[in-house]
Amino acid sequence: MNPTKTLVLALFTITLSSAAQTPTLTGKWIVTSDYFGTPSLARLTLEQQGAKLTGNFNGDKLEGTVTGNEITFTSKDEDGGSDTLHGIWKNGAISGDIVEIDSSNPTHPDHFTFTAILAAPLEHPTPQRHDFTPTVFRRQFSPLYPPVLTVNPGDTIHTTTVDAGGTDEHGIRRVAGGNPQTGPFYIRGAQPGDTLVVHLLHLKLNRDYAISDDNLDERVLGSHLAILAKDNHNNVRWHLDLTNNLASPEKPGDHMKSFTIPIRPMLGCIATATNPGNAPPGTGDSGGYGGNMDFNDVGEGATIYLPISNPGALLYLGDAHALQGDGELNGNALETSMDVEFTVDVIPGKRINGRRIETADNIITMGLSGSLDDAIKEATSQMADWLHQDYNLTPSETAQFLGVSAEYHISEVADRNAGIVLKIAKSKLSKLTNNK
Amino acid sequence: MNPTKTLVLALFTITLSSAAQTPTLTGKWIVTSDYFGTPSLARLTLEQQGAKLTGNFNGDKLEGTVTGNEITFTSKDEDGGSDTLHGIWKNGAISGDIVEIDSSNPTHPDHFTFTAILAAPLEHPTPQRHDFTPTVFRRQFSPLYPPVLTVNPGDTIHTTTVDAGGTDEHGIRRVAGGNPQTGPFYIRGAQPGDTLVVHLLHLKLNRDYAISDDNLDERVLGSHLAILAKDNHNNVRWHLDLTNNLASPEKPGDHMKSFTIPIRPMLGCIATATNPGNAPPGTGDSGGYGGNMDFNDVGEGATIYLPISNPGALLYLGDAHALQGDGELNGNALETSMDVEFTVDVIPGKRINGRRIETADNIITMGLSGSLDDAIKEATSQMADWLHQDYNLTPSETAQFLGVSAEYHISEVADRNAGIVLKIAKSKLSKLTNNK
Amino acid sequence: MNPTKTLVLALFTITLSSAAQTPTLTGKWIVTSDYFGTPSLARLTLEQQGAKLTGNFNGDKLEGTVTGNEITFTSKDEDGGSDTLHGIWKNGAISGDIVEIDSSNPTHPDHFTFTAILAAPLEHPTPQRHDFTPTVFRRQFSPLYPPVLTVNPGDTIHTTTVDAGGTDEHGIRRVAGGNPQTGPFYIRGAQPGDTLVVHLLHLKLNRDYAISDDNLDERVLGSHLAILAKDNHNNVRWHLDLTNNLASPEKPGDHMKSFTIPIRPMLGCIATATNPGNAPPGTGDSGGYGGNMDFNDVGEGATIYLPISNPGALLYLGDAHALQGDGELNGNALETSMDVEFTVDVIPGKRINGRRIETADNIITMGLSGSLDDAIKEATSQMADWLHQDYNLTPSETAQFLGVSAEYHISEVADRNAGIVLKIAKSKLSKLTNNK
Amino acid sequence: MNPTKTLVLALFTITLSSAAQTPTLTGKWIVTSDYFGTPSLARLTLEQQGAKLTGNFNGDKLEGTVTGNEITFTSKDEDGGSDTLHGIWKNGAISGDIVEIDSSNPTHPDHFTFTAILAAPLEHPTPQRHDFTPTVFRRQFSPLYPPVLTVNPGDTIHTTTVDAGGTDEHGIRRVAGGNPQTGPFYIRGAQPGDTLVVHLLHLKLNRDYAISDDNLDERVLGSHLAILAKDNHNNVRWHLDLTNNLASPEKPGDHMKSFTIPIRPMLGCIATATNPGNAPPGTGDSGGYGGNMDFNDVGEGATIYLPISNPGALLYLGDAHALQGDGELNGNALETSMDVEFTVDVIPGKRINGRRIETADNIITMGLSGSLDDAIKEATSQMADWLHQDYNLTPSETAQFLGVSAEYHISEVADRNAGIVLKIAKSKLSKLTNNK
Repeated sequence: MNPTKTLVLALFTITLSSAAQTPTLTGKWIVTSDYFGTPSLARLTLEQQGAKLTGNFNGDKLEGTVTGNEITFTSKDEDGGSDTLHGIWKNGAISGDIVEIDSSNPTHPDHFTFTAILAAPLEHPTPQRHDFTPTVFRRQFSPLYPPVLTVNPGDTIHTTTVDAGGTDEHGIRRVAGGNPQTGPFYIRGAQPGDTLVVHLLHLKLNRDYAISDDNLDERVLGSHLAILAKDNHNNVRWHLDLTNNLASPEKPGDHMKSFTIPIRPMLGCIATATNPGNAPPGTGDSGGYGGNMDFNDVGEGATIYLPISNPGALLYLGDAHALQGDGELNGNALETSMDVEFTVDVIPGKRINGRRIETADNIITMGLSGSLDDAIKEATSQMADWLHQDYNLTPSETAQFLGVSAEYHISEVADRNAGIVLKIAKSKLSKLTNNK
Repeated sequence: MNPTKTLVLALFTITLSSAAQTPTLTGKWIVTSDYFGTPSLARLTLEQQGAKLTGNFNGDKLEGTVTGNEITFTSKDEDGGSDTLHGIWKNGAISGDIVEIDSSNPTHPDHFTFTAILAAPLEHPTPQRHDFTPTVFRRQFSPLYPPVLTVNPGDTIHTTTVDAGGTDEHGIRRVAGGNPQTGPFYIRGAQPGDTLVVHLLHLKLNRDYAISDDNLDERVLGSHLAILAKDNHNNVRWHLDLTNNLASPEKPGDHMKSFTIPIRPMLGCIATATNPGNAPPGTGDSGGYGGNMDFNDVGEGATIYLPISNPGALLYLGDAHALQGDGELNGNALETSMDVEFTVDVIPGKRINGRRIETADNIITMGLSGSLDDAIKEATSQMADWLHQDYNLTPSETAQFLGVSAEYHISEVADRNAGIVLKIAKSKLSKLTNNK
Repeated sequence: MNPTKTLVLALFTITLSSAAQTPTLTGKWIVTSDYFGTPSLARLTLEQQGAKLTGNFNGDKLEGTVTGNEITFTSKDEDGGSDTLHGIWKNGAISGDIVEIDSSNPTHPDHFTFTAILAAPLEHPTPQRHDFTPTVFRRQFSPLYPPVLTVNPGDTIHTTTVDAGGTDEHGIRRVAGGNPQTGPFYIRGAQPGDTLVVHLLHLKLNRDYAISDDNLDERVLGSHLAILAKDNHNNVRWHLDLTNNLASPEKPGDHMKSFTIPIRPMLGCIATATNPGNAPPGTGDSGGYGGNMDFNDVGEGATIYLPISNPGALLYLGDAHALQGDGELNGNALETSMDVEFTVDVIPGKRINGRRIETADNIITMGLSGSLDDAIKEATSQMADWLHQDYNLTPSETAQFLGVSAEYHISEVADRNAGIVLKIAKSKLSKLTNNK
Repeated sequence: MNPTKTLVLALFTITLSSAAQTPTLTGKWIVTSDYFGTPSLARLTLEQQGAKLTGNFNGDKLEGTVTGNEITFTSKDEDGGSDTLHGIWKNGAISGDIVEIDSSNPTHPDHFTFTAILAAPLEHPTPQRHDFTPTVFRRQFSPLYPPVLTVNPGDTIHTTTVDAGGTDEHGIRRVAGGNPQTGPFYIRGAQPGDTLVVHLLHLKLNRDYAISDDNLDERVLGSHLAILAKDNHNNVRWHLDLTNNLASPEKPGDHMKSFTIPIRPMLGCIATATNPGNAPPGTGDSGGYGGNMDFNDVGEGATIYLPISNPGALLYLGDAHALQGDGELNGNALETSMDVEFTVDVIPGKRINGRRIETADNIITMGLSGSLDDAIKEATSQMADWLHQDYNLTPSETAQFLGVSAEYHISEVADRNAGIVLKIAKSKLSKLTNNK
């Protein structure tokens, strides 16, 4: 079975016992349930008019009643699931049981417990700058690790990352390799279903060497290049000239004796923690949550938009590269530690179906899939969504506009997901008439 | 960075303090280390001659000395890493520190702790049959869950699995969906680097319905079949006629009113737990460890060979299908609970580079990759390895033999990995001359 | 530009001058035009009622008039093209000029000449058996080569094919290699838009050796199998034991000294000639017309359905294999000459969107594309069409039926197109209720 | 069978009858043979010392003798084929018979006739500029069409191309659509095995409109974008503002009312004629010979390197685009007619294994294959060849250099071959040390 198909059908009955305190139910809630041992998060919106409750649970409309602090409501999904709730409001939280009927097995309702709390409001106090020195590094984009720092939307964070192998700016190993991350950072007021905005202000090298390799990835090797697969598997150290911003191999071959190349710092990984009901991805993986994207435009000045699956967003970042050609062909780019400074913000209620990137000149979607042939479909589909969502283009206009404006680059071939990015120049977007 | 490239270079110095008890070091050991917060397992073989130690650590030769119960040895890898150890033998275990020099950063050795214990011997006592009723079900192929049952090689286990959605033989949901597994089972004496052998004796349906869907997977849909992607996303219940072993849709369309099809029970998932240093895969994923293979020859009478990454092997199984066409085109097959009976065994010291399958008539390799075009390469490469390893075929003979004997089927398209299997008939293998 | 998008928009005005002979226009016509140097074929159906003409030209409705033997009519396509005709009927044929307006360039109509003749009727006289000895062999599936034999629907042809390298049953080279074909055979009454039916009665070896190779195709080689790509490129001769129907290498390696394998004769190529307006494909290529399909079920007893693009269908066949594993992994199968006996028939007016195959047990569609990942989409889409066209399945039923019934095999990896076949057992089809 | 594997093994015996005229044999020859009805070209180098002949035929060493004007020589290939020749030199040409033994069928030698003439010398007289007005347009990259103009290496040609649909600068259709070509041009002294160099001096629009479409190609459509596949198949005319070099849709949708985009003229097709022994490709296809590459860097200032398969090279060009986004997503770019001016030159004896492109800033290789996943392998392999051939990089240096320097773009998705280009900046190449 493909487990992504699993549908969660929710049937709610919250019974509130009578209480001196009067519940204030209207508002946005976060529901945490224990679904047979698996934690589950859902958005709940309640509208209270006297004893009557309306609203939305996890995307489905609900109706119910309030008697004292005893609450009951039902939501139905389009496949025919239905619900009853018996719960109690107390001190601002609701606790109780869910009875859920799955349309494919209607005679055996599920019973499980839940707790709902009001979602933290999204506020923008005076922005602050935080200097954060990491002491632990994480190897999964997991929602289960405790936040290392809590900040407000609009704040700036200055921190450091270790290299992909776990070594810091002093050359000291701090953690096992595999792209260990700094974080997670908790952003107050961020809720599942919002979008996280990360703007990279500065990426600054903080040591004078990087680690790489001299083989080429399997995805670009046909049998013609087999010699590269068999003979080359050596670590290659590059010297980073921090004054002139140039990289060069420490022990060059005869034809690279004078070789230097300008550095172009970037972050290989940036991610929000994934849904707590699923196995957390390792830090070599990527997906809708971002992750190990290894795209060389994720550098100074770039803005990254990420979907949020947990309260606080839980932002991770790491795997800095002094420089990476397209594709990260050696498996490693020029891997190094880095000083990173960035601001965070939240777009409430905006759902995006994957990571988006914006640079000074372009808006960019990324397809991440098991083959380039599938990745280009995803990159194109996401850009069509973006053009429809934010620029109101019709399908015919989308096709005409992409036909003359599309720029496709290959971002990554060295990981389980291959990446293709679709860039659209802002100079071309500016010629569109953005009305409904 | 692609984290699979991370090399672990080990430098050992175990200093044993003098002790009344004389250490017996010759033998096979399992070394567990705490690598900067990440657990790591390695095989260690020691040969003691007086004060001299030789052997092998994690694939590299070692040399060292014993003084009383104080142990020191060094292993070097081919990239130029080197080692020193300072450890103490006590009550059959060795504890101490590892100093590891990574050739890419030789001026900053790593220091971390370890414990080594003698590997449990692999024995075959009189085979037993175990009736095991599961009470918990796992959603990751993780080495961190405690074993539910410990058995000996040669033993038989009879147990049950819930369906892919977490529902048991009584129609009761027991766990969240996503292929929850029965297990892990601990097999005494199994060590990392061995091969686990699972022989499926019986797969028996234990309820009269299965759940499926009526859409087709994205991998087989071009834009020509887009109507199937848009219009069909309905759950479909199938009736299972346990007397006649036939399946039929409970609410058939006009052209399927009389449709019945013979059931062919199979297990979608069978796996060993993965390396403790990596993020554990969810039970929808697959890899060298097996996992969610969704291959319809994994049925009664089949034997599955799996590489072992943890002491005890830690076997999981689940996701039973009453029937599945090639590819599991609906995302779900006919998902149901099942009675499962199987024997386990271990081939010590045999490393295989992926799962292998054997049926009454065929030996079978499986490529699991992000595209069919990559999966066929893996399936073929693994069969070439098998033919070389067990049948001594030369490259030229391999090509000639495969050219006339290969049968490729598509096992799975509905998961993150697509699967292609390469079958070779035993009747054709029997014509080969198997000498060195 | 992708030239397959070129639309032919036809605007007709046929003016018939007055004549003593009265034209009989009602019927099916074949229109041959000279479109700026490129020959073009189109179907024309005319319905004459007094001076009024209605009907269909190349898929578009037409209206017109007849005055004596002077004919005028106009057809319009859905993109807004329109037409005028000025032509003369004489001795059963119509000749004149076409004025065609392309909607994308409406101010510049095209002018070109045409000739229309009544389509030959499709008749089934008493079936005959033809013994045909080929003297020329063709290396393109071209409509320009003269037919070697004209037969009626229902007739049987017995002939021979040379091997893929151009060598005949006496070991004599007759033509350059590259799958030279016997044919084309002209089937009376077959018209563009009909379907050709070829039933293979007998495939009989007529010499005692076959030629093959000992390398593996690039599509199954990852860098892990690179040694097979570099070291093996030797011709391998196989002995064919015609008495016992066994094949064995003439100079076997040590592990294949006793190796024999049953032969299973098949045709690598079977095709109809392609559209005369396009470059004819070489005999190594494949497409909707069939061609070099290299599928090992195209053997004795199989029926092949092919779309027809030219009057007479112009059937080619060749590239016989004594035996081929799935994929034709060595680039060559066991290539040999062959005695072939087959019957031909025509299904008038039935358009199929690609080759179809039927065996004793299965109906089979084939995807042929530049990658396996695209080929599976085509195979599935064609089977969905077949199930809809001939079995009336709805999209939901199609998905449910395929989900439990699909069998995918890989037919071919060694050519420009990779092939995947989708087989459906007739025993499963027989359980469907085939009503509208 | 995969016909590209066919080996031609040549066995020569040329008997020269005594003659008054003394043959001058030393030199480079072009051998044309009639191989059982298929024309074949081969290079022959002869070295005459008295009665003794040495040299090279089709890549294999030869030895032979001369007696008067009677010539005999033999060449052997590495698979064990061998030869005898019996031919006569007369008036500068040699005519006779070839007896060829194929190692896979040694008991049946082939006999066929040949003619050899001295290869035309490659000379560079004072460059000339040719104004050429085409009257015919070709729809195959065929060696069989007569040259339309013969020029010397170093010459400049100014000519025009019709658009992909066959319409010229006056809006008049001149030929059926499908990328009809201007040419072939014959370059004196160019021989099979040389490289053709085409430098594009000027690409100038010569009419004020272009034709395109509003759908997206299947390769970028997943089922999510199915709406674009179903609903959009309209021709779209673009206005070309020749004064300001801007394009805009003639009938824009609401959101493209003010849309303009700078034109960037390019040639979709540029090709040498293919090997006369194979079916000529249609002008929608592409391969080692170039062809329908549809790459938007093939514009003014670009230099294209193409392998030569025929005497005179036989250069074709056409399919001009006013503008094309990456991928040619609409199937058509902005298709228009064009004024083209270019120079030609020849690099004698340099064999390249595919087309190469050079712009002001980059050297570029192109992978053209049935999938993006295969195209990237070809692009990378060809660049590795280039870096080895012209810059002497070792495999390890190649990997390190590509790792930091590679830029991959997607050139084309709308044709049978998908294209990926690998660009290397000349500024990075200039840092290499190019010594042996």
